[in-house]
Amino acid sequence: MGTDSAHTVKSYEQELTRLRALMTRMGGIVESQVAQAIAAVTEQDEQAAQAAPAQDAQVDALEREVETLSIRLLALRGPMASDLREIVAALKITGDLERIGDYASSIARRSRKFDLIDGNISLSGLSAMGRLVQDNLRRAIDAISQQDADRALEVWNSDREVDEYYTAMFRALVTYMMEDPRKITTCTHLLFIAKNLERIGDHATNIAERVYYAVTGATLPALRPRGGAALSDPDEVQLP
Amino acid sequence: MGTDSAHTVKSYEQELTRLRALMTRMGGIVESQVAQAIAAVTEQDEQAAQAAPAQDAQVDALEREVETLSIRLLALRGPMASDLREIVAALKITGDLERIGDYASSIARRSRKFDLIDGNISLSGLSAMGRLVQDNLRRAIDAISQQDADRALEVWNSDREVDEYYTAMFRALVTYMMEDPRKITTCTHLLFIAKNLERIGDHATNIAERVYYAVTGATLPALRPRGGAALSDPDEVQLP
Repeated sequence: MGTDSAHTVKSYEQELTRLRALMTRMGGIVESQVAQAIAAVTEQDEQAAQAAPAQDAQVDALEREVETLSIRLLALRGPMASDLREIVAALKITGDLERIGDYASSIARRSRKFDLIDGNISLSGLSAMGRLVQDNLRRAIDAISQQDADRALEVWNSDREVDEYYTAMFRALVTYMMEDPRKITTCTHLLFIAKNLERIGDHATNIAERVYYAVTGATLPALRPRGGAALSDPDEVQLP
Repeated sequence: MGTDSAHTVKSYEQELTRLRALMTRMGGIVESQVAQAIAAVTEQDEQAAQAAPAQDAQVDALEREVETLSIRLLALRGPMASDLREIVAALKITGDLERIGDYASSIARRSRKFDLIDGNISLSGLSAMGRLVQDNLRRAIDAISQQDADRALEVWNSDREVDEYYTAMFRALVTYMMEDPRKITTCTHLLFIAKNLERIGDHATNIAERVYYAVTGATLPALRPRGGAALSDPDEVQLP
Protein backbone atom coordinates (compact mmCIF):
# COMPACT_ATOMS: atom_id res chain seq x y z
CA MET A 1 0.00 0.00 0.00
CA GLY A 2 2.85 2.34 0.92
CA THR A 3 4.59 1.45 -2.33
CA ASP A 4 1.38 1.94 -4.27
CA SER A 5 0.80 5.35 -2.76
CA ALA A 6 4.41 6.43 -3.43
CA HIS A 7 4.00 5.21 -6.99
CA THR A 8 0.78 7.20 -7.40
CA VAL A 9 2.42 10.36 -6.07
CA LYS A 10 5.36 9.90 -8.38
CA SER A 11 3.17 9.49 -11.46
CA TYR A 12 1.11 12.48 -10.45
CA GLU A 13 4.24 14.66 -10.23
CA GLN A 14 5.43 13.24 -13.55
CA GLU A 15 2.12 14.07 -15.17
CA LEU A 16 2.15 17.64 -13.84
CA THR A 17 5.73 18.00 -15.10
CA ARG A 18 4.61 16.69 -18.49
CA LEU A 19 1.73 19.21 -18.56
CA ARG A 20 4.22 22.02 -17.91
CA ALA A 21 6.55 20.69 -20.62
CA LEU A 22 3.67 20.60 -23.12
CA MET A 23 2.75 24.19 -22.27
CA THR A 24 6.38 25.31 -22.65
CA ARG A 25 6.62 23.53 -26.01
CA MET A 26 3.37 25.04 -27.23
CA GLY A 27 4.51 28.47 -26.06
CA GLY A 28 7.86 28.06 -27.81
CA ILE A 29 6.26 27.19 -31.14
CA VAL A 30 3.79 30.07 -30.93
CA GLU A 31 6.65 32.43 -30.03
CA SER A 32 8.56 31.30 -33.13
CA GLN A 33 5.42 31.79 -35.26
CA VAL A 34 5.16 35.39 -34.06
CA ALA A 35 8.89 36.01 -34.78
CA GLN A 36 8.43 34.53 -38.26
CA ALA A 37 5.33 36.62 -38.90
CA ILE A 38 7.13 39.83 -37.98
CA ALA A 39 10.16 38.91 -40.12
CA ALA A 40 7.83 38.07 -43.00
CA VAL A 41 6.40 41.60 -42.92
CA THR A 42 9.31 43.81 -41.88
CA GLU A 43 12.02 41.96 -43.84
CA GLN A 44 9.70 40.64 -46.57
CA ASP A 45 11.15 37.23 -45.69
CA GLU A 46 9.37 34.70 -47.91
CA GLN A 47 10.67 31.66 -46.06
CA ALA A 48 9.38 33.00 -42.74
CA ALA A 49 6.03 33.75 -44.38
CA GLN A 50 5.67 30.08 -45.22
CA ALA A 51 7.13 28.77 -41.96
CA ALA A 52 4.57 30.35 -39.59
CA PRO A 53 1.37 28.79 -41.01
CA ALA A 54 3.16 25.44 -41.41
CA GLN A 55 3.21 25.15 -37.60
CA ASP A 56 -0.55 25.64 -37.06
CA ALA A 57 -1.33 21.92 -37.09
CA GLN A 58 1.29 21.23 -34.43
CA VAL A 59 -0.12 23.97 -32.20
CA ASP A 60 -3.64 22.55 -32.58
CA ALA A 61 -2.34 19.07 -31.74
CA LEU A 62 -0.61 20.37 -28.60
CA GLU A 63 -3.80 22.13 -27.50
CA ARG A 64 -5.66 18.82 -27.77
CA GLU A 65 -2.85 16.99 -25.96
CA VAL A 66 -2.97 19.46 -23.06
CA GLU A 67 -6.75 19.02 -22.88
CA THR A 68 -6.52 15.23 -22.85
CA LEU A 69 -3.81 15.23 -20.18
CA SER A 70 -5.70 17.79 -18.09
CA ILE A 71 -8.89 15.74 -18.20
CA ARG A 72 -6.85 12.68 -17.18
CA LEU A 73 -5.27 14.55 -14.28
CA LEU A 74 -8.64 15.90 -13.15
CA ALA A 75 -10.37 12.53 -13.40
CA LEU A 76 -7.71 10.28 -11.87
CA ARG A 77 -5.66 12.47 -9.55
CA GLY A 78 -8.15 14.79 -7.90
CA PRO A 79 -5.71 17.71 -7.78
CA MET A 80 -6.37 20.42 -5.18
CA ALA A 81 -5.65 24.11 -4.56
CA SER A 82 -2.78 25.52 -6.62
CA ASP A 83 -2.38 22.34 -8.73
CA LEU A 84 -6.07 22.48 -9.63
CA ARG A 85 -5.79 26.19 -10.48
CA GLU A 86 -2.72 25.48 -12.60
CA ILE A 87 -4.53 22.78 -14.60
CA VAL A 88 -7.59 24.99 -15.14
CA ALA A 89 -5.27 27.84 -16.17
CA ALA A 90 -3.50 25.52 -18.63
CA LEU A 91 -6.84 24.70 -20.27
CA LYS A 92 -7.58 28.40 -20.70
CA ILE A 93 -4.06 29.46 -21.67
CA THR A 94 -3.83 26.96 -24.53
CA GLY A 95 -6.86 28.75 -26.01
CA ASP A 96 -4.94 32.05 -25.89
CA LEU A 97 -1.79 30.43 -27.32
CA GLU A 98 -3.79 28.87 -30.16
CA ARG A 99 -5.27 32.27 -31.04
CA ILE A 100 -1.83 33.90 -30.96
CA GLY A 101 -0.49 31.28 -33.38
CA ASP A 102 -3.56 31.86 -35.54
CA TYR A 103 -2.96 35.63 -35.66
CA ALA A 104 0.74 35.07 -36.44
CA SER A 105 -0.17 32.81 -39.37
CA SER A 106 -2.65 35.35 -40.61
CA ILE A 107 0.07 38.06 -40.53
CA ALA A 108 2.53 35.77 -42.32
CA ARG A 109 0.05 34.92 -45.09
CA ARG A 110 -0.84 38.58 -45.54
CA SER A 111 2.82 39.57 -45.86
CA ARG A 112 2.85 37.94 -49.29
CA LYS A 113 -0.10 39.93 -50.57
CA PHE A 114 1.43 43.37 -50.90
CA ASP A 115 4.61 45.23 -51.75
CA LEU A 116 5.97 48.36 -50.14
CA ILE A 117 5.67 50.55 -53.27
CA ASP A 118 9.30 51.61 -53.71
CA GLY A 119 9.87 51.96 -49.97
CA ASN A 120 7.35 54.78 -49.69
CA ILE A 121 5.69 53.19 -46.70
CA SER A 122 7.66 53.15 -43.46
CA LEU A 123 7.49 50.02 -41.35
CA SER A 124 9.49 51.39 -38.43
CA GLY A 125 6.38 51.72 -36.23
CA LEU A 126 5.35 48.19 -37.03
CA SER A 127 8.87 46.90 -36.24
CA ALA A 128 8.88 48.65 -32.87
CA MET A 129 5.39 47.37 -32.06
CA GLY A 130 6.46 43.88 -33.14
CA ARG A 131 9.47 43.92 -30.81
CA LEU A 132 7.34 45.02 -27.86
CA VAL A 133 4.69 42.37 -28.50
CA GLN A 134 7.39 39.70 -28.86
CA ASP A 135 8.97 40.80 -25.56
CA ASN A 136 5.61 40.63 -23.81
CA LEU A 137 4.83 37.23 -25.26
CA ARG A 138 8.26 35.86 -24.25
CA ARG A 139 7.75 37.10 -20.70
CA ALA A 140 4.22 35.66 -20.59
CA ILE A 141 5.52 32.26 -21.70
CA ASP A 142 8.38 32.42 -19.17
CA ALA A 143 5.77 33.21 -16.54
CA ILE A 144 3.91 30.02 -17.48
CA SER A 145 7.03 27.83 -17.42
CA GLN A 146 8.30 29.24 -14.14
CA GLN A 147 4.88 29.91 -12.61
CA ASP A 148 6.22 33.41 -11.95
CA ALA A 149 3.64 35.97 -10.79
CA ASP A 150 6.05 38.95 -10.93
CA ARG A 151 6.89 38.27 -14.55
CA ALA A 152 3.16 38.00 -15.27
CA LEU A 153 2.63 41.40 -13.66
CA GLU A 154 5.28 42.98 -15.91
CA VAL A 155 3.42 41.82 -19.02
CA TRP A 156 0.12 42.99 -17.65
CA ASN A 157 1.57 46.46 -17.04
CA SER A 158 2.88 47.01 -20.55
CA ASP A 159 -0.26 46.25 -22.54
CA ARG A 160 -1.11 49.94 -22.61
CA GLU A 161 2.10 50.71 -24.52
CA VAL A 162 1.13 48.16 -27.20
CA ASP A 163 -2.22 49.92 -27.57
CA GLU A 164 -0.47 53.27 -27.99
CA TYR A 165 1.69 51.91 -30.80
CA TYR A 166 -1.39 50.50 -32.47
CA THR A 167 -3.29 53.78 -32.31
CA ALA A 168 -0.34 55.70 -33.79
CA MET A 169 0.03 53.19 -36.63
CA PHE A 170 -3.66 53.23 -37.39
CA ARG A 171 -3.63 57.00 -37.88
CA ALA A 172 -0.45 56.90 -39.98
CA LEU A 173 -1.77 54.20 -42.29
CA VAL A 174 -5.09 55.92 -42.90
CA THR A 175 -3.22 59.14 -43.67
CA TYR A 176 -1.03 57.28 -46.20
CA MET A 177 -4.16 55.98 -47.92
CA MET A 178 -5.74 59.40 -48.12
CA GLU A 179 -2.59 60.96 -49.54
CA ASP A 180 -2.13 58.31 -52.20
CA PRO A 181 -4.94 55.92 -53.19
CA ARG A 182 -2.38 53.60 -54.83
CA LYS A 183 -1.31 52.69 -51.31
CA ILE A 184 -4.80 51.54 -50.27
CA THR A 185 -4.25 47.83 -50.83
CA THR A 186 -0.92 47.73 -49.01
CA CYS A 187 -2.12 49.91 -46.16
CA THR A 188 -5.28 47.87 -45.71
CA HIS A 189 -3.17 44.76 -45.23
CA LEU A 190 -0.87 46.65 -42.85
CA LEU A 191 -3.90 47.85 -40.84
CA PHE A 192 -4.94 44.26 -40.27
CA ILE A 193 -1.38 43.24 -39.45
CA ALA A 194 -1.20 46.01 -36.82
CA LYS A 195 -4.57 44.91 -35.43
CA ASN A 196 -3.42 41.30 -35.25
CA LEU A 197 -0.28 42.35 -33.37
CA GLU A 198 -2.43 44.31 -30.96
CA ARG A 199 -4.60 41.21 -30.41
CA ILE A 200 -1.49 39.07 -29.83
CA GLY A 201 -0.52 41.58 -27.13
CA ASP A 202 -4.02 41.25 -25.65
CA HIS A 203 -3.76 37.48 -25.48
CA ALA A 204 -0.29 37.72 -23.88
CA THR A 205 -1.94 39.89 -21.22
CA ASN A 206 -4.74 37.34 -20.79
CA ILE A 207 -2.08 34.68 -20.21
CA ALA A 208 -0.35 36.92 -17.66
CA GLU A 209 -3.64 37.37 -15.79
CA ARG A 210 -4.24 33.63 -15.72
CA VAL A 211 -0.73 32.79 -14.52
CA TYR A 212 -1.03 35.43 -11.82
CA TYR A 213 -4.28 33.89 -10.60
CA ALA A 214 -2.99 30.32 -10.79
CA VAL A 215 0.11 31.16 -8.74
CA THR A 216 -1.34 33.59 -6.20
CA GLY A 217 -5.03 32.68 -6.08
CA ALA A 218 -5.73 36.42 -6.41
CA THR A 219 -7.13 38.17 -9.46
CA LEU A 220 -5.56 41.30 -10.93
CA PRO A 221 -7.72 44.39 -10.58
CA ALA A 222 -10.17 44.99 -13.43
CA LEU A 223 -8.21 48.09 -14.49
CA ARG A 224 -7.77 46.57 -17.88
CA PRO A 225 -11.31 45.69 -19.00
CA ARG A 226 -10.70 43.44 -21.99
CA GLY A 227 -11.92 45.33 -25.00
CA GLY A 228 -13.94 47.39 -22.58
CA ALA A 229 -14.64 51.07 -22.56
CA ALA A 230 -11.29 52.17 -21.08
CA LEU A 231 -10.00 55.48 -22.37
CA SER A 232 -7.02 53.77 -23.93
CA ASP A 233 -9.23 51.42 -25.95
CA PRO A 234 -7.60 51.36 -29.37
CA ASP A 235 -10.99 51.14 -31.10
CA GLU A 236 -11.78 54.57 -29.73
CA VAL A 237 -9.23 56.05 -32.12
CA GLN A 238 -10.62 58.94 -34.13
CA LEU A 239 -9.48 58.68 -37.73
CA PRO A 240 -8.19 61.67 -39.68
CA MET B 1 -24.69 7.64 5.29
CA GLY B 2 -27.41 6.80 2.74
CA THR B 3 -28.98 10.20 3.37
CA ASP B 4 -25.61 11.90 3.16
CA SER B 5 -24.85 10.24 -0.16
CA ALA B 6 -28.28 11.14 -1.58
CA HIS B 7 -27.72 14.69 -0.39
CA THR B 8 -24.31 14.79 -2.11
CA VAL B 9 -25.78 13.52 -5.38
CA LYS B 10 -28.57 16.06 -5.22
CA SER B 11 -26.20 18.99 -4.66
CA TYR B 12 -23.99 17.71 -7.45
CA GLU B 13 -26.91 17.70 -9.87
CA GLN B 14 -27.94 21.14 -8.63
CA GLU B 15 -24.46 22.48 -9.22
CA LEU B 16 -24.30 21.05 -12.74
CA THR B 17 -27.71 22.60 -13.43
CA ARG B 18 -26.43 25.90 -12.12
CA LEU B 19 -23.38 25.66 -14.37
CA ARG B 20 -25.67 25.13 -17.38
CA ALA B 21 -27.85 28.07 -16.31
CA LEU B 22 -24.78 30.33 -16.04
CA MET B 23 -23.65 29.28 -19.53
CA THR B 24 -27.11 29.95 -20.95
CA ARG B 25 -27.24 33.36 -19.28
CA MET B 26 -23.77 34.27 -20.52
CA GLY B 27 -24.71 33.08 -24.01
CA GLY B 28 -27.92 35.11 -23.93
CA ILE B 29 -26.13 38.33 -23.00
CA VAL B 30 -23.46 37.84 -25.66
CA GLU B 31 -26.18 37.10 -28.22
CA SER B 32 -27.90 40.37 -27.33
CA GLN B 33 -24.57 42.22 -27.61
CA VAL B 34 -24.11 40.91 -31.14
CA ALA B 35 -27.68 41.90 -32.08
CA GLN B 36 -27.06 45.38 -30.66
CA ALA B 37 -23.75 45.69 -32.49
CA ILE B 38 -25.37 44.84 -35.83
CA ALA B 39 -28.26 47.24 -35.23
CA ALA B 40 -25.76 49.94 -34.24
CA VAL B 41 -24.08 49.63 -37.63
CA THR B 42 -26.86 48.78 -40.07
CA GLU B 43 -29.54 51.00 -38.51
CA GLN B 44 -27.13 53.58 -37.05
CA ASP B 45 -28.91 52.92 -33.76
CA GLU B 46 -27.16 55.07 -31.15
CA GLN B 47 -28.87 53.41 -28.19
CA ALA B 48 -27.76 49.96 -29.34
CA ALA B 49 -24.22 51.29 -29.83
CA GLN B 50 -24.11 52.20 -26.16
CA ALA B 51 -25.94 49.12 -24.90
CA ALA B 52 -23.48 46.52 -26.20
CA PRO B 53 -20.30 47.71 -24.40
CA ALA B 54 -22.33 48.34 -21.24
CA GLN B 55 -22.73 44.57 -20.86
CA ASP B 56 -19.01 43.71 -21.00
CA ALA B 57 -18.52 43.79 -17.25
CA GLN B 58 -21.42 41.38 -16.72
CA VAL B 59 -19.98 38.95 -19.28
CA ASP B 60 -16.57 39.08 -17.57
CA ALA B 61 -18.20 38.46 -14.19
CA LEU B 62 -20.09 35.45 -15.56
CA GLU B 63 -16.88 34.03 -17.02
CA ARG B 64 -15.27 34.25 -13.58
CA GLU B 65 -18.38 32.73 -11.95
CA VAL B 66 -18.30 29.75 -14.32
CA GLU B 67 -14.61 29.27 -13.57
CA THR B 68 -15.15 29.38 -9.81
CA LEU B 69 -18.06 26.94 -9.98
CA SER B 70 -16.14 24.63 -12.33
CA ILE B 71 -13.14 24.53 -10.01
CA ARG B 72 -15.50 23.79 -7.12
CA LEU B 73 -17.17 20.95 -9.04
CA LEU B 74 -13.81 19.52 -10.08
CA ALA B 75 -12.34 19.72 -6.58
CA LEU B 76 -15.29 18.49 -4.54
CA ARG B 77 -17.33 16.28 -6.85
CA GLY B 78 -14.81 14.36 -8.91
CA PRO B 79 -17.01 14.37 -12.03
CA MET B 80 -16.36 11.65 -14.60
CA ALA B 81 -16.80 10.96 -18.30
CA SER B 82 -19.37 13.21 -20.00
CA ASP B 83 -19.87 15.43 -16.92
CA LEU B 84 -16.12 16.02 -16.76
CA ARG B 85 -16.02 16.78 -20.50
CA GLU B 86 -18.94 19.17 -20.09
CA ILE B 87 -17.20 21.11 -17.30
CA VAL B 88 -13.94 21.33 -19.25
CA ALA B 89 -15.91 22.45 -22.32
CA ALA B 90 -17.65 25.12 -20.22
CA LEU B 91 -14.26 26.50 -19.15
CA LYS B 92 -13.16 26.74 -22.78
CA ILE B 93 -16.50 27.97 -24.16
CA THR B 94 -16.69 30.92 -21.76
CA GLY B 95 -13.41 32.09 -23.33
CA ASP B 96 -15.06 32.04 -26.76
CA LEU B 97 -18.19 33.78 -25.45
CA GLU B 98 -16.09 36.48 -23.80
CA ARG B 99 -14.26 37.12 -27.07
CA ILE B 100 -17.56 37.28 -28.99
CA GLY B 101 -18.89 39.89 -26.55
CA ASP B 102 -15.62 41.77 -26.92
CA TYR B 103 -15.91 41.81 -30.73
CA ALA B 104 -19.54 42.92 -30.50
CA SER B 105 -18.59 45.83 -28.24
CA SER B 106 -15.80 46.78 -30.60
CA ILE B 107 -18.28 46.84 -33.51
CA ALA B 108 -20.76 48.89 -31.49
CA ARG B 109 -18.13 51.47 -30.51
CA ARG B 110 -16.90 51.73 -34.07
CA SER B 111 -20.42 52.33 -35.37
CA ARG B 112 -20.29 55.80 -33.84
CA LYS B 113 -17.09 56.77 -35.60
CA PHE B 114 -18.30 57.12 -39.16
CA ASP B 115 -21.22 58.16 -41.30
CA LEU B 116 -22.44 56.59 -44.50
CA ILE B 117 -21.71 59.61 -46.70
CA ASP B 118 -25.19 60.30 -48.06
CA GLY B 119 -26.03 56.63 -48.43
CA ASN B 120 -23.31 56.08 -51.02
CA ILE B 121 -22.05 52.99 -49.21
CA SER B 122 -24.29 49.94 -49.27
CA LEU B 123 -24.58 47.93 -46.08
CA SER B 124 -26.70 45.14 -47.55
CA GLY B 125 -23.77 42.69 -47.58
CA LEU B 126 -22.98 43.50 -43.97
CA SER B 127 -26.64 43.04 -42.98
CA ALA B 128 -26.79 39.63 -44.65
CA MET B 129 -23.50 38.57 -43.04
CA GLY B 130 -24.76 39.84 -39.69
CA ARG B 131 -27.95 37.77 -39.95
CA LEU B 132 -26.00 34.62 -40.78
CA VAL B 133 -23.53 35.13 -37.93
CA GLN B 134 -26.41 35.79 -35.52
CA ASP B 135 -28.16 32.60 -36.67
CA ASN B 136 -24.99 30.58 -36.15
CA LEU B 137 -24.38 32.06 -32.74
CA ARG B 138 -27.98 31.39 -31.67
CA ARG B 139 -27.67 27.77 -32.75
CA ALA B 140 -24.30 27.42 -31.02
CA ILE B 141 -25.78 28.72 -27.78
CA ASP B 142 -28.81 26.43 -28.12
CA ALA B 143 -26.37 23.58 -28.63
CA ILE B 144 -24.71 24.46 -25.30
CA SER B 145 -28.01 24.72 -23.40
CA GLN B 146 -29.42 21.50 -24.84
CA GLN B 147 -26.09 19.68 -25.17
CA ASP B 148 -27.18 19.02 -28.77
CA ALA B 149 -24.49 17.59 -31.07
CA ASP B 150 -26.63 17.83 -34.24
CA ARG B 151 -27.23 21.53 -33.71
CA ALA B 152 -23.49 21.95 -33.16
CA LEU B 153 -22.81 20.19 -36.46
CA GLU B 154 -25.12 22.62 -38.30
CA VAL B 155 -23.12 25.58 -37.05
CA TRP B 156 -19.86 23.91 -37.92
CA ASN B 157 -21.06 23.32 -41.48
CA SER B 158 -22.03 26.91 -42.21
CA ASP B 159 -18.80 28.66 -41.23
CA ARG B 160 -17.64 28.55 -44.83
CA GLU B 161 -20.61 30.68 -45.91
CA VAL B 162 -19.63 33.37 -43.35
CA ASP B 163 -16.12 33.41 -44.83
CA GLU B 164 -17.54 33.86 -48.33
CA TYR B 165 -19.57 36.89 -47.23
CA TYR B 166 -16.49 38.34 -45.59
CA THR B 167 -14.34 37.92 -48.69
CA ALA B 168 -16.96 39.58 -50.89
CA MET B 169 -17.32 42.51 -48.49
CA PHE B 170 -13.61 42.96 -48.21
CA ARG B 171 -13.25 43.34 -51.99
CA ALA B 172 -16.23 45.67 -52.22
CA LEU B 173 -14.94 47.97 -49.46
CA VAL B 174 -11.45 48.26 -50.91
CA THR B 175 -12.98 49.07 -54.29
CA TYR B 176 -15.09 51.83 -52.70
CA MET B 177 -11.95 53.32 -51.15
CA MET B 178 -10.06 53.29 -54.43
CA GLU B 179 -12.93 54.91 -56.29
CA ASP B 180 -13.40 57.69 -53.76
CA PRO B 181 -10.73 58.50 -51.15
CA ARG B 182 -13.33 60.43 -49.12
CA LYS B 183 -14.76 57.02 -48.23
CA ILE B 184 -11.48 55.74 -46.75
CA THR B 185 -12.30 56.45 -43.10
CA THR B 186 -15.77 54.93 -43.24
CA CYS B 187 -14.64 51.92 -45.26
CA THR B 188 -11.70 51.27 -42.93
CA HIS B 189 -14.11 51.06 -40.01
CA LEU B 190 -16.43 48.83 -42.05
CA LEU B 191 -13.50 46.54 -42.94
CA PHE B 192 -12.82 46.00 -39.25
CA ILE B 193 -16.50 45.50 -38.53
CA ALA B 194 -16.68 42.82 -41.23
CA LYS B 195 -13.54 41.18 -39.84
CA ASN B 196 -15.00 41.21 -36.33
CA LEU B 197 -18.20 39.57 -37.59
CA GLU B 198 -16.10 36.91 -39.30
CA ARG B 199 -14.26 36.30 -36.02
CA ILE B 200 -17.56 36.04 -34.15
CA GLY B 201 -18.55 33.36 -36.66
CA ASP B 202 -15.23 31.59 -36.00
CA HIS B 203 -15.82 31.56 -32.27
CA ALA B 204 -19.37 30.25 -32.78
CA THR B 205 -17.78 27.39 -34.72
CA ASN B 206 -15.24 26.80 -31.93
CA ILE B 207 -18.16 26.54 -29.50
CA ALA B 208 -19.91 24.08 -31.82
CA GLU B 209 -16.76 21.92 -31.95
CA ARG B 210 -16.49 21.92 -28.17
CA VAL B 211 -20.14 21.04 -27.60
CA TYR B 212 -19.86 18.24 -30.15
CA TYR B 213 -16.85 16.82 -28.31
CA ALA B 214 -18.40 17.21 -24.86
CA VAL B 215 -21.59 15.40 -25.94
CA THR B 216 -20.16 12.67 -28.16
CA GLY B 217 -16.57 12.27 -26.93
CA ALA B 218 -15.54 12.43 -30.61
CA THR B 219 -13.75 15.31 -32.31
CA LEU B 220 -14.93 16.80 -35.58
CA PRO B 221 -12.55 16.16 -38.46
CA ALA B 222 -9.85 18.79 -38.90
CA LEU B 223 -11.41 19.89 -42.19
CA ARG B 224 -11.67 23.37 -40.83
CA PRO B 225 -8.15 24.18 -39.64
CA ARG B 226 -8.67 27.28 -37.50
CA GLY B 227 -7.09 30.11 -39.34
CA GLY B 228 -5.10 27.51 -41.21
CA ALA B 229 -4.17 27.29 -44.84
CA ALA B 230 -7.53 26.09 -46.15
CA LEU B 231 -8.46 27.36 -49.58
CA SER B 232 -11.38 29.24 -48.14
CA ASP B 233 -9.20 31.14 -45.69
CA PRO B 234 -10.51 34.68 -45.83
CA ASP B 235 -7.00 36.13 -45.35
CA GLU B 236 -6.04 34.63 -48.68
CA VAL B 237 -8.26 37.16 -50.42
CA GLN B 238 -6.46 38.95 -53.24
CA LEU B 239 -7.34 42.63 -53.17
CA PRO B 240 -8.21 44.59 -56.31
